[in-house]
Order: sequence, then C-alpha cells, then structure tokens
Amino acid sequence: MSYDLKIAVVEADAGRSAEILQGLADGGWTDVVVLSETRALARRLSEIDPDLVLIDLANPSRDLLENLSAASGASTRPVAMFVDRSDDGMTGAAIKAGLSAYVVDGLKKDRIKPVLETAIARFRMISQMRSELDAAKLALAERKTIDRAKGLLMQAKGIGEDEAYSLLRRTAMDQNRKLTDVAQALITATELLQ
Amino acid sequence: MSYDLKIAVVEADAGRSAEILQGLADGGWTDVVVLSETRALARRLSEIDPDLVLIDLANPSRDLLENLSAASGASTRPVAMFVDRSDDGMTGAAIKAGLSAYVVDGLKKDRIKPVLETAIARFRMISQMRSELDAAKLALAERKTIDRAKGLLMQAKGIGEDEAYSLLRRTAMDQNRKLTDVAQALITATELLQ
Repeated sequence: MSYDLKIAVVEADAGRSAEILQGLADGGWTDVVVLSETRALARRLSEIDPDLVLIDLANPSRDLLENLSAASGASTRPVAMFVDRSDDGMTGAAIKAGLSAYVVDGLKKDRIKPVLETAIARFRMISQMRSELDAAKLALAERKTIDRAKGLLMQAKGIGEDEAYSLLRRTAMDQNRKLTDVAQALITATELLQ
Repeated sequence: MSYDLKIAVVEADAGRSAEILQGLADGGWTDVVVLSETRALARRLSEIDPDLVLIDLANPSRDLLENLSAASGASTRPVAMFVDRSDDGMTGAAIKAGLSAYVVDGLKKDRIKPVLETAIARFRMISQMRSELDAAKLALAERKTIDRAKGLLMQAKGIGEDEAYSLLRRTAMDQNRKLTDVAQALITATELLQ
C-alpha cells in the first residue's frame, strides 16, 4: 500500500530534515515536500495537498501542538508528529487533536517507515469509525424527520402509517427529491401554517 | 493520570524484561506482573485483571499477533505491542486487532513511558468513539422498535401518534419496564396473533 504517497514534512532543522528524507526514501517514498517553517501552514498544505504530513518539533507547547494538528488537517489525512519531549497533558491533547501518530523521542531514520505505516492504518481505522458514527447519527436524524412527517400526515388525512409512508415516498419519487427533504418540507409547512 | 496502574508485561526474554521493568519504574509504575510465556494468556490475564498489557515480541507471525491481541483483551484495555520487525500487512492487522500502540523496533527503556501514555490516551479516545457509535446504533434500533409499536397501536385502536406514544409510555411506567421492552412485547404479540 501507500507507496506513491505525496508527503509533506514540516521540519525547521536541516540536519534532521535530511535524516527524515533518507528514512522516507528508504521506505520507498520520494514524493516529498519539506516545509522549513510553520508560518501559514494550513494554506501551504492546501496548495500542496499531501497524502500524509510528518511534523517534527523539538519541544512544542501544547498550544503549538494543537494549532499545528489543526493546520495540518489531522482529521482529513494521516498526520504523524515527532516531538523530543512530552508530558501527560500534551500526549492526551495530541491524541484528541486527531494525530495518527505521536512519537516522543523516537525520530530515527529506520523507524520512520513503520511509524508512518502505523499512522496510515490508524487513520483509516478511525476514519471508518467516524464514517459509521456519522452515518448512524444521520440515519437517526432522518428517521426522526420522516416519522414526524408521517405522524403529521396520519393525523391530517386520517390514514394509517403505511399509507402515510407510501404517500411521502411517492411524492419524493414524483418530485425526484430525497424522502427526508419531502418530510422536512412537510414539517416546515405545517409549522408555518399552525 | 494512570500512576497506580496494574500492568501485565508479556516478555519471554529475561534481559528485555528487566529493561522494561526499569522503564516502567522510571515512569512511576511499579505494580507489574511479568508473564514469560503466552500459554493460556487470556486466562492468566483474566486472573490478573491488569489495567494495561505490554507485549514484546521479537518477530511474530500475523496469526500470533492477532491471537495475542485478542487474548490480551485489546478492545477492553490498552494493549501496547512492541515488535522487532513488521510489514505493511502486519501493521494493518495490528491496528485492526485493536492494539492501542504498535511499535516497531522501538523498545528502549526511556520510550516506554511516553508510548504507554500515548496508548492510554488512544485507548480512551477509541473507546469513547465506540461508545458513541454503539449508543447511536442502539438509539436507531430502539426508535425503529418504538415506531413500529406505535404504528401497530395507531392502527389497532384508531388513535393518533401522540396518543399511541403516551399509551406505550404509560404502560412502561406502570409495569416499571423500558419503553423499548414494552414496544418489543407488543410487536412480538402482534406477530404471534397474526
């Protein structure tokens, strides 16, 4: 997997940057952009649009850590952060900020590849869980909307549940709209007319 | 956080075991049990009931990795695994197996504490996501059950939605049962009587 990834490296130190590039090359990754400063990081990354971001920081504050996690789009792509020092609070903040890897005092050329592979696998797993969660929440919200509309129809027209549902569905099909949109329209209209 | 954790260490090599114990002690963790073999791991761990499991393996097969992840209860407690070598497939399998940390070629005394702290934070985040997902799925399932029961009542008794819901709720309160249980009972009875 993942051998034609475009990788953005955020690294201020030229020596460490060279070591990282070597580790990436050893891992088969050569499509790499190095950013030597964090100024305007979000904008620069949106131009580069990398598949993965590797950030190396000597001794970040918690604020910097959270800012860079957000700027590097940790919820939309794997972001691996290497730091020299951390503490409990920072580690918790790093995970909450959505980093796919947070490695303390572990930046060695040979470990870059396994860390990034773990970060990619971790990112995929969490993305999938998040999609499932979003889908479940959406399904619940849609169901509430449809049920409310169904109830309104049943009372207004003195019809049964199945008939109310069929009516909503037929209307949606006739108008080429989503069932929830028709249901929401009915709810809105009923509220307006009350 | 987490300074009075009971930790189980799975380590066959006595030298590495000593290094791990030292790393744990440096991190403030002294309530540690070392298991020098993986035989009957699930049973032994259920007796010990540790808060966290650290597994160190020289060169595991994918099967062994998955078996030990399951045996160590990776979905119910943080499990950190250290291995000397890995590949893409194994890394993906390790993350899927629910390991809270998977560290390739990175077992050093000084890194044990930060790795375990990251594992704990990761475990908490994923547990919370899993709870949210379970809650959303349950809410959806319960809603479907309640709506179905409501519809049955509306048709059987010729009443409106609100009245059907009140009736279900009153019955649940009178019988000191959950609303979904009453709804499910009604659905079951209706199916039997059809």
